Amino acid sequence: MSPRDAVSDGISLSEVTIDDDFWSPRRERNRDVTISYQYDQLEESGTLENFRRVADEESGGFQGMWFQDTDAYKWIEAASYVLSQREDPELEAKVDEVISLIADAQQPDGYLNTYFSLVEPENRWTNLHMMHELYCAGHLIEAAVAHYRATEKETLLEVAVDFADRVDDVFGNEVEGVPGHEEIELALLKLYRVTDETRYLELAKYFIDLRGKEDRLAWEIDNPETLGGAEYDDGEVISAARDVFTHEDGTYDRRYAQAHEPLRDQETVEGHSVRAMYLFAAATDLAIEMDEDELIESLERLWTNMTTKRMYVTGGLGPEEAHEGFTTDYDLRNDAYAETCAAIGSVYWNQRLFELTGEAKYADLIERTLYNGFLAGVSLDGTEFFYENPLESDGDHHRKGWFTCACCPPNAARLLASLGEYVYSQRGSALYVNQYLGGSVETTVDGATVELSQDSFLPWSGEVTIDVDAEGASVPLRLRIPEWAESSTVTVNGESLDAPAEGYLEVEREWDDDRIELTFEQAVTRLEAHPAVAADAGRVALKRGPLVYCLEAVDNDRPLQQYEDPEPTSTTHRPDLLEGVTVIEGEASVPDRQGWDGELYRPADETARERTEFTAVPYYAWDNREPGAMRVWLRS
Amino acid sequence: MSPRDAVSDGISLSEVTIDDDFWSPRRERNRDVTISYQYDQLEESGTLENFRRVADEESGGFQGMWFQDTDAYKWIEAASYVLSQREDPELEAKVDEVISLIADAQQPDGYLNTYFSLVEPENRWTNLHMMHELYCAGHLIEAAVAHYRATEKETLLEVAVDFADRVDDVFGNEVEGVPGHEEIELALLKLYRVTDETRYLELAKYFIDLRGKEDRLAWEIDNPETLGGAEYDDGEVISAARDVFTHEDGTYDRRYAQAHEPLRDQETVEGHSVRAMYLFAAATDLAIEMDEDELIESLERLWTNMTTKRMYVTGGLGPEEAHEGFTTDYDLRNDAYAETCAAIGSVYWNQRLFELTGEAKYADLIERTLYNGFLAGVSLDGTEFFYENPLESDGDHHRKGWFTCACCPPNAARLLASLGEYVYSQRGSALYVNQYLGGSVETTVDGATVELSQDSFLPWSGEVTIDVDAEGASVPLRLRIPEWAESSTVTVNGESLDAPAEGYLEVEREWDDDRIELTFEQAVTRLEAHPAVAADAGRVALKRGPLVYCLEAVDNDRPLQQYEDPEPTSTTHRPDLLEGVTVIEGEASVPDRQGWDGELYRPADETARERTEFTAVPYYAWDNREPGAMRVWLRS
Repeated sequence: MSPRDAVSDGISLSEVTIDDDFWSPRRERNRDVTISYQYDQLEESGTLENFRRVADEESGGFQGMWFQDTDAYKWIEAASYVLSQREDPELEAKVDEVISLIADAQQPDGYLNTYFSLVEPENRWTNLHMMHELYCAGHLIEAAVAHYRATEKETLLEVAVDFADRVDDVFGNEVEGVPGHEEIELALLKLYRVTDETRYLELAKYFIDLRGKEDRLAWEIDNPETLGGAEYDDGEVISAARDVFTHEDGTYDRRYAQAHEPLRDQETVEGHSVRAMYLFAAATDLAIEMDEDELIESLERLWTNMTTKRMYVTGGLGPEEAHEGFTTDYDLRNDAYAETCAAIGSVYWNQRLFELTGEAKYADLIERTLYNGFLAGVSLDGTEFFYENPLESDGDHHRKGWFTCACCPPNAARLLASLGEYVYSQRGSALYVNQYLGGSVETTVDGATVELSQDSFLPWSGEVTIDVDAEGASVPLRLRIPEWAESSTVTVNGESLDAPAEGYLEVEREWDDDRIELTFEQAVTRLEAHPAVAADAGRVALKRGPLVYCLEAVDNDRPLQQYEDPEPTSTTHRPDLLEGVTVIEGEASVPDRQGWDGELYRPADETARERTEFTAVPYYAWDNREPGAMRVWLRS
Repeated sequence: MSPRDAVSDGISLSEVTIDDDFWSPRRERNRDVTISYQYDQLEESGTLENFRRVADEESGGFQGMWFQDTDAYKWIEAASYVLSQREDPELEAKVDEVISLIADAQQPDGYLNTYFSLVEPENRWTNLHMMHELYCAGHLIEAAVAHYRATEKETLLEVAVDFADRVDDVFGNEVEGVPGHEEIELALLKLYRVTDETRYLELAKYFIDLRGKEDRLAWEIDNPETLGGAEYDDGEVISAARDVFTHEDGTYDRRYAQAHEPLRDQETVEGHSVRAMYLFAAATDLAIEMDEDELIESLERLWTNMTTKRMYVTGGLGPEEAHEGFTTDYDLRNDAYAETCAAIGSVYWNQRLFELTGEAKYADLIERTLYNGFLAGVSLDGTEFFYENPLESDGDHHRKGWFTCACCPPNAARLLASLGEYVYSQRGSALYVNQYLGGSVETTVDGATVELSQDSFLPWSGEVTIDVDAEGASVPLRLRIPEWAESSTVTVNGESLDAPAEGYLEVEREWDDDRIELTFEQAVTRLEAHPAVAADAGRVALKRGPLVYCLEAVDNDRPLQQYEDPEPTSTTHRPDLLEGVTVIEGEASVPDRQGWDGELYRPADETARERTEFTAVPYYAWDNREPGAMRVWLRS
């Protein structure tokens, strides 16, 4: 079975419902608050006005960031995921109205970008490294595919197809080059899958294969004066922003946009971490379509480099602020950049790696990322967002309602709205349960209708019940045993099965109102990092089930650096705290504060130590109370 | 006895010779290499050309930083210290030539600043916070005083007096305000002491007393468009640089230039650390002259805040790069800024505090600063300098030959050239030995000629011999017992004296070819920092005698973060290494590297530990071999 065949009959989002104590309230706030707020922002920020002005054949007056069109596209995408799961005529009408504005702004030749149409129509496709025309095209296509799948309406799909055709005409013909920010590649693969038009597959392959082989990006970096973008804020913003593409000495740094080598030769994950994730996600889809060994090997090699040398314990990616990305092996400084969008991109990539291989480790990492590196990005009330997700803070890092470069909030919105895509999968004739989330799926496997209904107490306890009915049809069910489970028990109608330590437990039978009960033991674990990680030397992190924990100043009397050798003693579920969390309590060693008056340094070992209590909360929940210090890695 | 009387009969630099195994080679390189190189830089950088153009009544064509005149002044000052200690007709001729250029550039009304005279003559005294006219004046005066004391020539002193008179005419009359960068205050006090002209004392007092009470700095920050400096690089450099005076929200931050409160009310050391040291040094001189309790109390309070809450173990000051200065109590991050000039400024301040009080703790801190925070700033060969002195490096921080803002190299040059000022002191009728450095002093105490000749093996061993002769006159001699001495023995002509644990041992006798032998025990000490210092929690630093030690990658196999619980086992003097250093060797615990293939995080306590050897070198000597990581604070 080729990878292509394996995923050809995937489960659609509309077949999945989510009804989960942990995730449903977050998804409801995402739908009712975030997506609604995003819509208001489209008007307030001038995003919709840009489209209107283009439709009215106005000139100038562009508002917002030069890639502001994507705000509208991402909103449509998130709203479409909502519409795929429930009727909402009011939301659907708003979506139709925005789509209509977009369609009216499309140029007769299919081109669509309000910045260039309003400000520099003559400079299309001249500044591929900075001006994000292809990035915008990608988000348009993703929105169109989501909208078509949710509503079966082709209104936006037609716009996307016309623009994709235009891109296909231009690239490889008039222009040879790749975008500075990957995105269109994975979008074209989505478009190929809904249209079956192989030109989009070929065009995605063109962009993926050319990266690292072309000289256009290097040429643009050396010749900024000839490029489009000079009219945007007098070119100063663009000119300042493009420093990310250069080394300190001003020479071109090929790593930033993953152009240091052809993808198939790359050994390490480099550069801007969101761009890297989008490229690798697209390349994985390409590998699924093409079944090409060399590409698959390179993706697995990159995943291994990332997960064994360049990933935070939260699943967060990219330590460095300046390039918003990766640096060197084992550089995992705790004032991490770890952009929320990079965690989201990692979910996209890992989902595709799962589809390619059927391996549980990718679903394990999606779970780790969802509960930690991603979820920390969203405030408990759903209205504020982190761009950066450090693992340690002095208390001066806080979520915000919106950003000038507002990529994270809408990205979080579309992930939460499409969460159903990550729970179940079908590969060949097997049905996979990848995430334990309350809800249900009803789908068809080899002609048989399978209904599966799930109750889950994750992340607070590892008890899951799954009711399965296929009217007696025999369907292999693969249940993921989470890598964090200390031990597992699985029964079907009360009869025990032998579960592996991790990976999938396959259960095949003629399903007829059967009940599967799973229990995953959630012990509190003290983790340590590889000795090469300088930032975590002599430190431990507390983990329980899928959740990484942290200490916050609000719960703990001492400055956080003073806690040493934390020994967890108990866990308590506190429904009143942080919308309900299980806290880890324990004792740690702290220095006796006596005798230090008037001294800053003194001979070591004069300080007595005493035991004191500590309370740890889930990392995702930090910075939702009074501002204060936070630490994931505690002194061991 | 008032403080003024106590120092009135101080020891002049020309009475002291230094002949010391450790310091003399450094002083010779300073004289032969650095001061010579500095002179060449004066021509190359256009500094002298600026003076020539003003003398020739040219307009425009100013070269270098807007306060570039100080390069010439600092060079004259350093060269004068050299001339005070040995004849050097060639150097003296060069000094005379530069002085002549400076004198020719002085305006008829006494004003002297080549930037304003060449570029914006109409904008004198309009931009006190950024344009450094008074800072330049201060360095001119310091140079003039040093030159006069060394040579008894009044050529530069006359220039300085004329400019000081001009400043005195303007300030408090036409202009009310204080400079953004303190320096003139301490210079005016020096000028007062050589001229006995009380107007300079009063003017210094004016600047010191007005700081924190005036509104001019705040007004300038809010009205940059009306100020001088707009012609300097189109005003962009000045405009960008002045951000240091503002909070992130653009409002004026009164702390940067120590203007948050009147000095007498200040509780904590704030802002740019070099400026703070220069202000406090001047204020201490003022306290010596005025004997004013409130001022003395505030200075002692500030010193206590600095030394017990805001000082690196090396004596370095100021953790933060953005403001080159102080932040909050116990913020002693190891990627310290700790500017070399701040350590030098601390020496200046502490010397004056000693003169004010006669307390040994100030001489102790001068010793600590000289051997660590200051000396690290200069490469072993004397040709390269650190601006910043971190206590931990990944291996990417290196000394440079010169800087665009070249304050540190000439500041280091003038301190090394004037080192003799810190060895001996006279207060009242007592002669103090403050630093143990080989060499001699011949001075007059209460009419008696005292000759004192010193042999010292510091910093490598604590053995010191002092021969004293006063032709039978009785002179109280106060010998500092260093705070680092684990124990001390002192004999006079072989007879033991009881030495205190620290402070001064006073020995009074009729000195007649007597020999004092001192032995200070230098044990290796593991120091810890106050528990509130987050950066050093769970860490220890190694110290021996006055020297702080560090680990460098070149001497140690493992990444430095892996060394835990360092146990010193021996010290060895290695004449071949780093121009001769005593190294500390020992054993530390490091993680077993086995079993980590393919893992980045795993349950703690699975990693076995093993003992391995380490070698520590004096902190001042780091970054003099192949580039690599360095750490002062090791895991305990």
